[in-house]
Amino acid sequence: MIIGDLLDRNARRYPKKTAVFFRETRYTFGELKNRVCRLSNAFWEMGIRKGDRVALLLENCHQYLELYLAVTSKGAIAVPLNYRQAGRELTYIINDAQVKAVVSCKAYLPVLNAIEKDLQGVKYYISIDGGEKVLDYEQLITAASAAEKAPVTVSDSDVAYLMYTSGTTGYPKGVILTHKNIIMTSMNLSWSYHYIEPDDVTINFAPLFHSGQASISMCHFYSGATNIIMEKFNPQSILETIQKEKVTNFWAAPTMINMLIKYPEFARYDLSSLRQIAYSGAPMPVPLLKECLALIGPKFIQMYGLTEAGPHLTSLAQEDHVAEGPPEKVRRLGSVGKEVLNTQVRVVNERGEDVAPGEVGEIIGKGDNIMQGYWNLPKATAEALRDGWLYTGDLATVDEDGYIYIVDCKKDMIISGGENIYPKELENVIYEHPAVLEAAVIGLPDTHWGELVMALIVLKQGQQVTEEEIIEYCKKNLASYKKPKRVKFIDELPKNPSGKVLKTVLRQKFGEKKPI
Amino acid sequence: MIIGDLLDRNARRYPKKTAVFFRETRYTFGELKNRVCRLSNAFWEMGIRKGDRVALLLENCHQYLELYLAVTSKGAIAVPLNYRQAGRELTYIINDAQVKAVVSCKAYLPVLNAIEKDLQGVKYYISIDGGEKVLDYEQLITAASAAEKAPVTVSDSDVAYLMYTSGTTGYPKGVILTHKNIIMTSMNLSWSYHYIEPDDVTINFAPLFHSGQASISMCHFYSGATNIIMEKFNPQSILETIQKEKVTNFWAAPTMINMLIKYPEFARYDLSSLRQIAYSGAPMPVPLLKECLALIGPKFIQMYGLTEAGPHLTSLAQEDHVAEGPPEKVRRLGSVGKEVLNTQVRVVNERGEDVAPGEVGEIIGKGDNIMQGYWNLPKATAEALRDGWLYTGDLATVDEDGYIYIVDCKKDMIISGGENIYPKELENVIYEHPAVLEAAVIGLPDTHWGELVMALIVLKQGQQVTEEEIIEYCKKNLASYKKPKRVKFIDELPKNPSGKVLKTVLRQKFGEKKPI
Repeated sequence: MIIGDLLDRNARRYPKKTAVFFRETRYTFGELKNRVCRLSNAFWEMGIRKGDRVALLLENCHQYLELYLAVTSKGAIAVPLNYRQAGRELTYIINDAQVKAVVSCKAYLPVLNAIEKDLQGVKYYISIDGGEKVLDYEQLITAASAAEKAPVTVSDSDVAYLMYTSGTTGYPKGVILTHKNIIMTSMNLSWSYHYIEPDDVTINFAPLFHSGQASISMCHFYSGATNIIMEKFNPQSILETIQKEKVTNFWAAPTMINMLIKYPEFARYDLSSLRQIAYSGAPMPVPLLKECLALIGPKFIQMYGLTEAGPHLTSLAQEDHVAEGPPEKVRRLGSVGKEVLNTQVRVVNERGEDVAPGEVGEIIGKGDNIMQGYWNLPKATAEALRDGWLYTGDLATVDEDGYIYIVDCKKDMIISGGENIYPKELENVIYEHPAVLEAAVIGLPDTHWGELVMALIVLKQGQQVTEEEIIEYCKKNLASYKKPKRVKFIDELPKNPSGKVLKTVLRQKFGEKKPI
Repeated sequence: MIIGDLLDRNARRYPKKTAVFFRETRYTFGELKNRVCRLSNAFWEMGIRKGDRVALLLENCHQYLELYLAVTSKGAIAVPLNYRQAGRELTYIINDAQVKAVVSCKAYLPVLNAIEKDLQGVKYYISIDGGEKVLDYEQLITAASAAEKAPVTVSDSDVAYLMYTSGTTGYPKGVILTHKNIIMTSMNLSWSYHYIEPDDVTINFAPLFHSGQASISMCHFYSGATNIIMEKFNPQSILETIQKEKVTNFWAAPTMINMLIKYPEFARYDLSSLRQIAYSGAPMPVPLLKECLALIGPKFIQMYGLTEAGPHLTSLAQEDHVAEGPPEKVRRLGSVGKEVLNTQVRVVNERGEDVAPGEVGEIIGKGDNIMQGYWNLPKATAEALRDGWLYTGDLATVDEDGYIYIVDCKKDMIISGGENIYPKELENVIYEHPAVLEAAVIGLPDTHWGELVMALIVLKQGQQVTEEEIIEYCKKNLASYKKPKRVKFIDELPKNPSGKVLKTVLRQKFGEKKPI
């Protein structure tokens, strides 16, 4: 089965159901199929062939879903780009992926114009809303044939997406995902939601270039459900849309959920249509989760993964979100759960053996959702994929029942005076300080200690606290050797689109680059 | 993902849950994994390698599931055999499949002894319950290593099962199913049940050599649910087990469901644990279905498929089983529904175009559940698989909403005086005659009409009716040219294990063999 088969099947099964809804535009599965067939034929006529790369430089829009479908339907490869990146970064990725066509919009044409001279293989620029020296997206669709017959055979082992990871270290790497990877992730996600049904409606407001939101929208498409697409994150319009369109589920980063429930008019909206809310991309602080459970009810699912895994690896089910009760159950709020349906996930020590409960090891995963490797990076691929298993670089423990608790990122672990220090443990303590909004802990090179613990803290509005008070507070709540040696108050933490704090940026800014 | 991955994943996720239950034997997923690893290592030690065939000549038992798992885990191919077949038929299949080992039991050793001299490649005979000149199954397990490490790579495109179709015409054909086919069918079946969950319990009483029951048991294994295995069909012990073990669903042929609800003590049993009952293998007569709905409630799912499709192709959901209400809804009781989740099903005319509502066409299917072909039969494979689609040989119509109604089997269609006559239409009419228990309509060669319509009828106990009365009754309820020219009353209709009437047998018995 390839992604294009889903389009055919949905158009036959649910021809008149809304497939996608964006601003004033609604397309049924039947209409969507017609548009995607035309667009795909237009690409073919332009000479875009199986294996060619087509980059997407777009904010969220209904065309995004059309493009994922149309680019891949005859075997070309979609390369979604983070539109927040600077020209230099975009140039690197477009050249690394040897992109043949870029689909963009007016807002990003100036960036593209500025870097065009450095883009080596791009033959076509297409814009969804016009502009100079570009092909017009709608005109391509209108002019093309709606014929369905494919002139080429595409199999599920062919590459569908090339997704560049945010590159926490060094240059971004292109994660190679096949049709099988994408469809398997759709199945696994659907299972994590206790199955997405055709009458489900989701709302996409995180960026669709990101593997998290891209996989959620594809999972809903796979299940014949409706995708509502929002241009960006805006609490008011999200809450209004949930109420009006009877949205049944969505996916968000914890910071987004925080902003939704803190929206002043939150209580005014009828959100009773919601069945489930999935969160991932960053750990959900337990106090926030408890607040969410109290406000919205037991509708939360935690997911954990990474682009290299398609991205879905584990989930903590609704029924495991117990805020009150025996401590061994409440403790699970801090767990990412267990492997999802068609995936195997283990936590192993350096000899590759499963760790005993309580021991720290690395999370590894195996399954048809796991990437084929990094684009043109055989060495990085061989490091990440060993003996069929993906080494995630995330450190975790398991409890007696097999629930997985992420301790930290392997590369974020600090070794100070010979002791392992996990920044996340420290951050959890600092987060509970009443004056603190957010915190990030990093290691800085130090000749005496090897590494030195530094805490970067964003205070809540109107709050004040000294460095010494924070250090004292940590000493009281943790083993003394774990306390930060330096504390700095800043206005904002740098984050990737899924809300994950970019520690590399912090290390570059506040200390020397940490050797890998 | 291969079948062996499911075993690993289940043993990790549900180590202490009951995986399989047969008579006095219960194995958890953890225990089952240990036994399967050992058995699989024993096979390897015996020199059974990837691609080798291992035949299973066994009635239902817990070993059946172990064997499906152990044979396939290092890439060997399971060849389940219909134990009702005569020595001559078994010889044909075992030689055709070039089987290297046969796993059987005392009851079938006499048959094997009798044909042994004609079996060309069999090196090993294994028995699950002892006997002379055979290897002992339990001793193999006890003596083998429980090591998990596989000495060979198995991928999802490797062959897992070779399932011989009942061979309605000519010799039986070996249907090649890969690991991917088996797992995709598990997913599709789970979807048809509105998802099988780990707390589900099913009861297998149809033969496990048959693709229907084999796929149901594998779907439950895939979902981490419990498989109860019954030696054979016995209404009393089935009803007792459903009550005692709180069975949540099962699959049965319509005739079996009929026998269950007609069991004198039926009303005495508490069947409230049942969530869903799936039926397939033969059409469910509408009066019987209405009776079932009244007695058991709206818990029925119809499935349609064939071994070549793994076997699942379409299903009619619970919510479409409406016995009272608008005629366009009630009519759907006679429909096999629509394509299942990961499959595409169309009804096409001879030019390969979708038929208009009401027109008769052939059902074709496409998806990762579809067989790779027939074993060593390139011509038959090329006829069945065209352009990626399986041509089922089943004729059907579709209604305005895309629901599929099977008209008949292409090869059973009768052409009499230039008119197409679909035996099923005639059978449905005859079935409604108050004296009739069962009926089958066949075409016999005739020099004048081309073919001549003959009805074979089994009367209800104590009932009497003449040939003329039946012909008159048909004339009154159908176009006259469709009425049978001959009627014969017989004691029993020959059926395959899933309850499908074997018309070839009837044609051979009551007329000349119909030219294909």
